[in-house]
Amino acid sequence: MARRFDTISFLSDYGHADEFGGGVHSVIRSIAPHVTVVDLVHDLAPFDVRGGSLALSRAIQYVAPGIVLAIVDPGVGTDRRAIAAEVGEDGEGILIGPDNGLLAPAALMCGGVTRAVELTNPEYRLVAPGPTFAGRDVFAPAAAHLASGVPITALGPEIDPYQLRPSLVPLPRSDGDVLIAEVLWVDRYGNCQLNLDPDELAPLGDVVGVRVGTDPRRSAKRVGAFAELAPGQVGLIVDSYGLISLALDQSSAADALHLHPGAEVRLEALA
Amino acid sequence: MARRFDTISFLSDYGHADEFGGGVHSVIRSIAPHVTVVDLVHDLAPFDVRGGSLALSRAIQYVAPGIVLAIVDPGVGTDRRAIAAEVGEDGEGILIGPDNGLLAPAALMCGGVTRAVELTNPEYRLVAPGPTFAGRDVFAPAAAHLASGVPITALGPEIDPYQLRPSLVPLPRSDGDVLIAEVLWVDRYGNCQLNLDPDELAPLGDVVGVRVGTDPRRSAKRVGAFAELAPGQVGLIVDSYGLISLALDQSSAADALHLHPGAEVRLEALA
Amino acid sequence: MARRFDTISFLSDYGHADEFGGGVHSVIRSIAPHVTVVDLVHDLAPFDVRGGSLALSRAIQYVAPGIVLAIVDPGVGTDRRAIAAEVGEDGEGILIGPDNGLLAPAALMCGGVTRAVELTNPEYRLVAPGPTFAGRDVFAPAAAHLASGVPITALGPEIDPYQLRPSLVPLPRSDGDVLIAEVLWVDRYGNCQLNLDPDELAPLGDVVGVRVGTDPRRSAKRVGAFAELAPGQVGLIVDSYGLISLALDQSSAADALHLHPGAEVRLEALA
Repeated sequence: MARRFDTISFLSDYGHADEFGGGVHSVIRSIAPHVTVVDLVHDLAPFDVRGGSLALSRAIQYVAPGIVLAIVDPGVGTDRRAIAAEVGEDGEGILIGPDNGLLAPAALMCGGVTRAVELTNPEYRLVAPGPTFAGRDVFAPAAAHLASGVPITALGPEIDPYQLRPSLVPLPRSDGDVLIAEVLWVDRYGNCQLNLDPDELAPLGDVVGVRVGTDPRRSAKRVGAFAELAPGQVGLIVDSYGLISLALDQSSAADALHLHPGAEVRLEALA
Repeated sequence: MARRFDTISFLSDYGHADEFGGGVHSVIRSIAPHVTVVDLVHDLAPFDVRGGSLALSRAIQYVAPGIVLAIVDPGVGTDRRAIAAEVGEDGEGILIGPDNGLLAPAALMCGGVTRAVELTNPEYRLVAPGPTFAGRDVFAPAAAHLASGVPITALGPEIDPYQLRPSLVPLPRSDGDVLIAEVLWVDRYGNCQLNLDPDELAPLGDVVGVRVGTDPRRSAKRVGAFAELAPGQVGLIVDSYGLISLALDQSSAADALHLHPGAEVRLEALA
Repeated sequence: MARRFDTISFLSDYGHADEFGGGVHSVIRSIAPHVTVVDLVHDLAPFDVRGGSLALSRAIQYVAPGIVLAIVDPGVGTDRRAIAAEVGEDGEGILIGPDNGLLAPAALMCGGVTRAVELTNPEYRLVAPGPTFAGRDVFAPAAAHLASGVPITALGPEIDPYQLRPSLVPLPRSDGDVLIAEVLWVDRYGNCQLNLDPDELAPLGDVVGVRVGTDPRRSAKRVGAFAELAPGQVGLIVDSYGLISLALDQSSAADALHLHPGAEVRLEALA
């Protein structure tokens, strides 16, 4: 028997309107009743592999030791591979999900994949009436069996960790004196996380010009807390992941600035 | 003492905006701290007993052994009965909820009810300030006490299992060469599950004419995976419960075809 | 070592679209794997301290013994205090959250705070990349360490329990023969809880005149169950917390009467 795990951290785009997430929980509970499932987030935008990979890369630093089950899987039923990937020293963690780039940034943050398999062994899958719910029929049983001490190599053939599908995380770039960033994430409160760390922003000063599309330029103030902002004032804050976020106090920066994930934001020093 | 259970699977129309689900969890945790509650789904449409009964009948095949607590209860506070029903061999599972048809299809899938009681014993209910939250005051305590080994017959008088309220699950019918199906479920992605199994659809061929209301006829292609569909193309796929679903690739069939649960879909061979 | 706890009941305005709640769960699971987290509610309106304090005061009577973690925290990152407050005899329960009035009504229902500390000890906080996610970096570690037996006084300096920020819960008032109430809560079904108990309403009789703003007066009938109401008829029902709620049968009273939390409702006897 291999190492056992008692936590499975679970992220998906299943939402809450259907029993998809409940089905995954049920299968894990049936196979590995000793496991606690920690729900990370399930209201990711449907089919949004990039958004899911970013959410997972934010969460991964904090998940409890064990297994991570991540499912945003528009290619379900095709020949996209279902995989389990060991990460960390001595395979101390395992990421499970479709090989479509969803797992890649999180794997990188864990130091890279040390061993990976494709989940093909029917002994560790459920017999599926149809091919559309791999979460319940493929991924959940794999997670539960791994948690119960089944060796990863029993789940299917080893595959080359360097051949896993990567994910493209955008980097900020410069256009003359303008810093061009991208919105990675709009959270519930309308805060807009940029692909920008504080060091990159520092040269622009404490009040920064912000342009979105053809909207008029706004000025944004570097602050340490939302409540330092006046009503309607745009702020730039170091967020809880150490990146720069555009924010308003108790109001949505995404609404005020017409921003969405993937939108381009141009930042410049104010003369 | 009767058998003990360590899993309660929980389905409701409580949504997530209020502390209703949390109240049920809290009561179970207080009475039976050894129990793990598995949330199946809570964003069922308010008061939709039929939709809830279908969701439960889909989920029931996968729930962990133990107790199922199901609450969609528009008749709360009236003389509709609150019940617990044993199913399976030797009462290996117990369904708890209102006797309004919600439990019926799931009970049938478990082989029928072998014994049932009405939950009237005040010793196993909370003293309720008002009658509107039977989930917290009646159903959760019943589930928790049963999980802790209280015999089902202690919870109230036995009632005739054959007198439980049935649920009408619609069957497809034919009108000449036309197969008339009904939408059972629209999921988060907009896939529309029909009350139709693959054998019933097979005679119509691999490309099928689909009519909804007075909309123009569309053709729909039998596929094995969503990704086999071209953008905008309508597909017919065997879904994860073995029924036929109308689907588009990464897009909502419900939106494209103007479908909702209960809608009629007419299918016919294309000449 | 102090007392250990095995339940943390968790309420927030984090919603479900992001991994905020998952981050809190992950940190607790990492520090105190023996703990079960019970989610009370997370879809509170963003920044709505008053709504959160009312939800917590409703839920508190039913939570399992242990720790309550409550987070609605618009002042995160400012000098508002992060606190832990013992309540009940012998400190049998602990409330954790921002000192902004959120905890106050619940603390009162537990008999008041017997001892409180400010959560300043960096040993029991995570090193935070930014100041905006106190749930993950301050409150969750505090809850988990307290659950594991760390004495409350180790988390930071004691503060005066009488100096905690209170919450103003509105009382009904009279204007001549008119009883003026306020909507405390609109639930998922559209039921509108008033700050009114049955004794206060009784003198007005079994059918009561209800005015909202400048809308025409409606009559509302005292009933014991939603289903006693005719379609479209407005009812007054003793709800599951013992307060009076305006309700319709399987329909939203909030929509029908144009009500929202905080709205004023004028009630009077019908001649």
